[in-house]
Amino acid sequence: MARSRSLHRLNHLAQIASVDRETLMPPGGAEARALALAELEQLMHARSTDLVIADQLKAAEQETLDDEARADLREMQRGYLLATALPAELVEAKGLAASRCEYEWRAQRQANDWAAYLPNFREVLRLSREEAARLSDALGVSPYDALLDGFEPGMRSAEVARVFGAMRAWLPALIARIREKQASETVIEPVGPFALDAQRALVREIAETLGFDFERGRLDESTHPFSGGVPEDVRMTTRFREHDFSVALFSTIHETGHSRYEQGSPRAWLGRPIGSWRSMGIHESQSLAFEMQLARSRGFLERLAPRLVHYFGAQPAFEPENWLRAATRVVAGKIRVDADEATYPCHVMLRFDIEHALVAGEMQAEDVPAAWDEGMCDLLGLDTRGDYRDGCMQDPHWAGGAFGYFPCYTLGALYAAQWFAAIRRTTPDLDARIAAGDDAPVFDWLSANIWSQASRWTTPELVQRASGEALNPEHFRRHLETRYLS
Amino acid sequence: MARSRSLHRLNHLAQIASVDRETLMPPGGAEARALALAELEQLMHARSTDLVIADQLKAAEQETLDDEARADLREMQRGYLLATALPAELVEAKGLAASRCEYEWRAQRQANDWAAYLPNFREVLRLSREEAARLSDALGVSPYDALLDGFEPGMRSAEVARVFGAMRAWLPALIARIREKQASETVIEPVGPFALDAQRALVREIAETLGFDFERGRLDESTHPFSGGVPEDVRMTTRFREHDFSVALFSTIHETGHSRYEQGSPRAWLGRPIGSWRSMGIHESQSLAFEMQLARSRGFLERLAPRLVHYFGAQPAFEPENWLRAATRVVAGKIRVDADEATYPCHVMLRFDIEHALVAGEMQAEDVPAAWDEGMCDLLGLDTRGDYRDGCMQDPHWAGGAFGYFPCYTLGALYAAQWFAAIRRTTPDLDARIAAGDDAPVFDWLSANIWSQASRWTTPELVQRASGEALNPEHFRRHLETRYLS
Repeated sequence: MARSRSLHRLNHLAQIASVDRETLMPPGGAEARALALAELEQLMHARSTDLVIADQLKAAEQETLDDEARADLREMQRGYLLATALPAELVEAKGLAASRCEYEWRAQRQANDWAAYLPNFREVLRLSREEAARLSDALGVSPYDALLDGFEPGMRSAEVARVFGAMRAWLPALIARIREKQASETVIEPVGPFALDAQRALVREIAETLGFDFERGRLDESTHPFSGGVPEDVRMTTRFREHDFSVALFSTIHETGHSRYEQGSPRAWLGRPIGSWRSMGIHESQSLAFEMQLARSRGFLERLAPRLVHYFGAQPAFEPENWLRAATRVVAGKIRVDADEATYPCHVMLRFDIEHALVAGEMQAEDVPAAWDEGMCDLLGLDTRGDYRDGCMQDPHWAGGAFGYFPCYTLGALYAAQWFAAIRRTTPDLDARIAAGDDAPVFDWLSANIWSQASRWTTPELVQRASGEALNPEHFRRHLETRYLS
Repeated sequence: MARSRSLHRLNHLAQIASVDRETLMPPGGAEARALALAELEQLMHARSTDLVIADQLKAAEQETLDDEARADLREMQRGYLLATALPAELVEAKGLAASRCEYEWRAQRQANDWAAYLPNFREVLRLSREEAARLSDALGVSPYDALLDGFEPGMRSAEVARVFGAMRAWLPALIARIREKQASETVIEPVGPFALDAQRALVREIAETLGFDFERGRLDESTHPFSGGVPEDVRMTTRFREHDFSVALFSTIHETGHSRYEQGSPRAWLGRPIGSWRSMGIHESQSLAFEMQLARSRGFLERLAPRLVHYFGAQPAFEPENWLRAATRVVAGKIRVDADEATYPCHVMLRFDIEHALVAGEMQAEDVPAAWDEGMCDLLGLDTRGDYRDGCMQDPHWAGGAFGYFPCYTLGALYAAQWFAAIRRTTPDLDARIAAGDDAPVFDWLSANIWSQASRWTTPELVQRASGEALNPEHFRRHLETRYLS
């Protein structure tokens, strides 16, 4: 426990230095910062893989432990297994290959240059497969599942395939029905510019409305919005576009969801293994509960409309019914990060199929573009042939060797829908409460069932305890049908 | 050398976390930040006191080393001696006592409550004396000198007493002559408010003019201006007062001097013991070279006047001759940090006498107010009786257990005058060059003689090599006479 506490404190410094790097650091500081963070990471890795830990964990197994301490032990065992599974040379080689690939990818993507990207990507894939094989040996699961487990502990690709397979049977048709319905609607787009000071005031007000605790956190700016820092001092960021306030607005709402999960973790557990966030999917379920379930609900959007008038002045686009339609448009586009909640899972399902086959060795790096084109045509009816830039080269994940991450986005969306179905069961008048400005039922339920539970349970246990059932994509289907087709 | 490099990298994280604490951190993050920094400090201390270092240093003594490597060894030996001289319990006890005393001092000072402050101060003094005794044993110098050496390596109180004693013979009379001369001058004070955006633009321009490299550093805001960060990424701060732009202006100039010293350290030496700044006095000589020697020179102030008009609009106070007088007023005041360059040394000489006697055991905590009143009356003709707030309780240094620090401020002022005397020898038309907007002779000399030398030499060696003589307060005397009486 002392070791966990010490690592928690050192991680605090790594987090703050990382946040500073993304928000303030001048370019000249990059090299020294990378070396400093690598030094700390190496030191923390050495402390996490000390051979004495194996004996301590074995001895702890024999002790009489209360339930919470046993859960601490479970997390420690998992952490030790993962930390010791990979030889240092492999970690270093993959880190270097991924850094190079991701760095060069930035320009290669802009240049739509798949041929230049391919050799770097092939090397990252080769090392990721080796990593997967080693982790597979340690965890006793398939190579892909071993990588997936790093982001979503306890989740297996068979379960993902089951859920995504079910969605594939109804989602494309559902999207078609939504788009048909929306085709007959007129939507007036908001007209900018929107003064940055007004945007700043708006997003600060929204973060406060959504319960972000500014005494224990900050809202700053960065190129890509994120939520970082530590539970005691959460740093979230947003970005501003002068002609599109919705970028700052919805990214702030999204990050506030992540941040409240962190700020809501039990103080008494800080520094304990059970005090940490549970998984990427559960984390994303918080940001999407805020951004998609709550903030794009009719009641919340209707509350937002007069605030837009307050900050930006009246215009036809802010008439509540129009604003509601503008904020819930469903469009089949090539870019994942710009996708609405209905089409987003298609982007993820495509990536899951490809990365699963890549890691399993059933697909090679050079086969990705063809598989991409086929999948996008199949799922969203889009022709991406020859467009690597906005096709298979659009994301940094694979370039950085993060295979197994993509499913978490859609798992988060599914969990979020499942949470809201549970909240509606305990608060049948939820929509009326939200429309009246009372979001407390949402915050109270998430706090009691998710935030306060941190890593007390495995993910499947957490899902079952919180919602009374295992992961069930039907809640997401009903959510889409209710919001977009009723 | 590997150990030094590792410590340099870990210190990077401590610096950035400290800067973040002073500039951005929300109040709720304070406790976790303190624990995280203490964890890292403890870890760095353990790495600095490893018993194997003693053997390595002994072995290195026998090696054939080039001059730079031998200087590295000199600094390592000093560092190891200091790191191992104090028992951990004493360090912890003094840290706790100083934290409490300094924390409670904030309110006690406001309340002018010496009686409440005294017991805390007595305990800090007791532990500082014990610290001094231990360091005295390790270094083989007197207890006060052992503390002084922590801030100004190689400096001894006998040398300080010699220099301050010489100044005491002429400075009070010189101040009186300056004040007499200035009494007949009319000065129009600038009239605010001065828009904060205009102040921000002004100080940014001045920092750029003075060569601050924004690619390797930032200028932010904090309650008390400071220069921190690391040479690769220097973070300096300023503060803004709506009705007095000179606070932001001159504090920025001051911190830019500190920052250029850091930014000018040799890149090839980064992470080596010789690559670090030399001493507090030398550091302060850079900030004062910028703030006092350069920026309050006639030529520089005359260049500033039209920039003030540019940013704040014309007003009678910005007429160059008036602005020159306004920026070089000499006033005998109670507060050290508000003092002009002529009276500042009086504040320091008083503190040196008292802290020297306190550490030597020749004065007790309860004797401080009487000694203060007597010294202030003697040196500046001010009656401070009963005014602890703006008297002996005005500084945080002693409350925080930092005995031996104060002399460095005036050593810095003396060194700065000595550097400018040397610059004038190589560049006889210096004042004309500055007036014409060419500050390069100053930057070039400081870079060649101070910044690029880092810790290559001991302080006396550095002073001798840079200026051709040992510390000589006559340069400061001539500087004051030239600026204020000619």
